[in-house]
Amino acid sequence: MLLEEDCSKAMLSIKDALEAVEGRWTLLILYSLCSGPKRFKEIAREVNGITDKTLSAELKKMQANKLVKRDVHDTFPPKIEYTMTAHGMSLKKVLYELWSWGLLHRREVIGK
Amino acid sequence: MLLEEDCSKAMLSIKDALEAVEGRWTLLILYSLCSGPKRFKEIAREVNGITDKTLSAELKKMQANKLVKRDVHDTFPPKIEYTMTAHGMSLKKVLYELWSWGLLHRREVIGK
Repeated sequence: MLLEEDCSKAMLSIKDALEAVEGRWTLLILYSLCSGPKRFKEIAREVNGITDKTLSAELKKMQANKLVKRDVHDTFPPKIEYTMTAHGMSLKKVLYELWSWGLLHRREVIGK
Repeated sequence: MLLEEDCSKAMLSIKDALEAVEGRWTLLILYSLCSGPKRFKEIAREVNGITDKTLSAELKKMQANKLVKRDVHDTFPPKIEYTMTAHGMSLKKVLYELWSWGLLHRREVIGK
């Protein structure tokens, strides 16, 4: 299926996808939002090694890419939550494939 | 399936996978090797925008990750070809999912 496509067009699609998820954090953030809406600090705790500054920039980029939406609840103080959009949800299969290949790769190359 | 896994372990797998393919070039190079063994210059032509220096570094990293092997044929002058390994081939599903999601993303966000 992949091979019948015009090669340069297929490369463009793959490049698009990688650009949307590049820098490794996006998928990890989405993964953390799999289980439901979360506040900034909750995401920061779940995504190992990310700084607040990077998380903030990532969430902005992800909003522009329509992967995540930011909801401000009318409480005092206002509660801000991030939710995965339907478009973000559509990345689930990519996440799943990366996850299962990562397991294989650890066995194969990293060897533990 | 993904959700039943211990979250931090799943993140580790995803991180492993992303580290192996990060920087966007790896998958594009693998994609170009899908159709068979290729010489350095052939890969460079197919992967739009990559410099020789980057391609050379990428190929070395991919050999260390057992995704690609380098064959030197005993001819004059020696012919050097790069081939995808079985482990590299196992990334096919990841490639496929990235490709189809990239198409969707272009429709959804980039809008052309």
